Amino acid sequence: MSYARQMLDTYPRDANVDSDLLAATIDALSDCAQTCNADNAADLTVPDVAEMATCIRLCLDCTDICGTAAAVVGRLAVNDPRVTRPLLEACAAICRTCGDECERHASHHAHCRICAEACRRCERACRALLEVLA
Amino acid sequence: MSYARQMLDTYPRDANVDSDLLAATIDALSDCAQTCNADNAADLTVPDVAEMATCIRLCLDCTDICGTAAAVVGRLAVNDPRVTRPLLEACAAICRTCGDECERHASHHAHCRICAEACRRCERACRALLEVLA
Amino acid sequence: MSYARQMLDTYPRDANVDSDLLAATIDALSDCAQTCNADNAADLTVPDVAEMATCIRLCLDCTDICGTAAAVVGRLAVNDPRVTRPLLEACAAICRTCGDECERHASHHAHCRICAEACRRCERACRALLEVLA
Amino acid sequence: MSYARQMLDTYPRDANVDSDLLAATIDALSDCAQTCNADNAADLTVPDVAEMATCIRLCLDCTDICGTAAAVVGRLAVNDPRVTRPLLEACAAICRTCGDECERHASHHAHCRICAEACRRCERACRALLEVLA
Repeated sequence: MSYARQMLDTYPRDANVDSDLLAATIDALSDCAQTCNADNAADLTVPDVAEMATCIRLCLDCTDICGTAAAVVGRLAVNDPRVTRPLLEACAAICRTCGDECERHASHHAHCRICAEACRRCERACRALLEVLA
Repeated sequence: MSYARQMLDTYPRDANVDSDLLAATIDALSDCAQTCNADNAADLTVPDVAEMATCIRLCLDCTDICGTAAAVVGRLAVNDPRVTRPLLEACAAICRTCGDECERHASHHAHCRICAEACRRCERACRALLEVLA
Repeated sequence: MSYARQMLDTYPRDANVDSDLLAATIDALSDCAQTCNADNAADLTVPDVAEMATCIRLCLDCTDICGTAAAVVGRLAVNDPRVTRPLLEACAAICRTCGDECERHASHHAHCRICAEACRRCERACRALLEVLA
Repeated sequence: MSYARQMLDTYPRDANVDSDLLAATIDALSDCAQTCNADNAADLTVPDVAEMATCIRLCLDCTDICGTAAAVVGRLAVNDPRVTRPLLEACAAICRTCGDECERHASHHAHCRICAEACRRCERACRALLEVLA
């Protein structure tokens, strides 16, 4: 059981969301932030780094936005949909765009293939949470 | 001239936004992140810390969301409104809520009065940028 | 296999460190950052929040320092020991102090018990990496 | 007067450090984090992006480490030298290395010239604080 999942049942929340779904979203956000961060390091080592400029730029945004969403959702004792909804929408949008770009490089860079998977999984997790979050 | 303002004219941007407005937003976001962060430290030193729990919680969210928005807008070579618009909306929303809560404590805690000012200024800056950003 | 572990063998590194050890450290840092972040949210909901002020303060530092160490170590294509060594030392120190404080509350707050475990595991991981990192 | 400076005198600190010096360090750290972040965006737009790979890599580390140091020092109600000293040493080290690399590109990229200045100023600020911090 992930730390996010363990923590969720130790304190009260106002948001009426299933703990498994919430923990899966937090873990997907955290994994995506970490993977996009590592993908930048990997992109900077390839010979065709000029081809990777867009990928690096998008991974920077995806790291920051997913990292902050993981932090905010990971502290979700009280849910304010005016904050969490647009934040998760920004997250789903950057995961879509970043995942598309990583996928373009997936056949020749294993790090982009793995990063695309993390982005796809995170986009799905954000949209699943948006569906149930008031 | 702030570093954000100095950097803006050294590289091309696709977003057709006035550099002064963009730099003012980046600086307001960065100031608000920093001030909410310091307000947490200050809130934790007061005798009535139990009264400050909501303020601390909102300042944590405001620090993270404004910090990430400052990073993303500070790298705005290419603007994707599907990402920047909801991110700035999340930012304006948490600045409003956090500013309201800080204002409740402004008369007895100087740190909350200053933090409320930073939140109000940041909320206005986010809304001003949203108006001109495609 | 964690995303950190998957990413590590997809690009060259100058640091002659075992991939399993490196990935275990990145995961421990990321878990600790996430768990300390959630512990803040949990601490803010308890009736005796005034008793938790030190715990909240230390968890804030631990979240930030472990999160940055996870990012830096997760991009470790090139290792500069003048940077990574003091960063990991700062990390081990805050994990020790934060783990001690969380342990004081472990018997009456499950979130502090789990957080203490994450801090202990992260401290050990940082020290293990420090031993092998040039 | 910066927000960091305004906040410092609103709550008690155990660290016997001059408020002007402390605020100058927080502002230098925050400026450096922001400037290195913008330098990445700028580096990614230049035709010779392959030449900038090291600069981008170092700016990523400098952004993260300075950002976290700004957050920790900006909350310095209680000073634990086992944490703050190595953190500031890591910060001074990355500012030195990143400033050297930016300076190599300063004559042909204005963004690297400005970033080198921010790194130099931040390195000096970290070392000045290390001298007076117990």
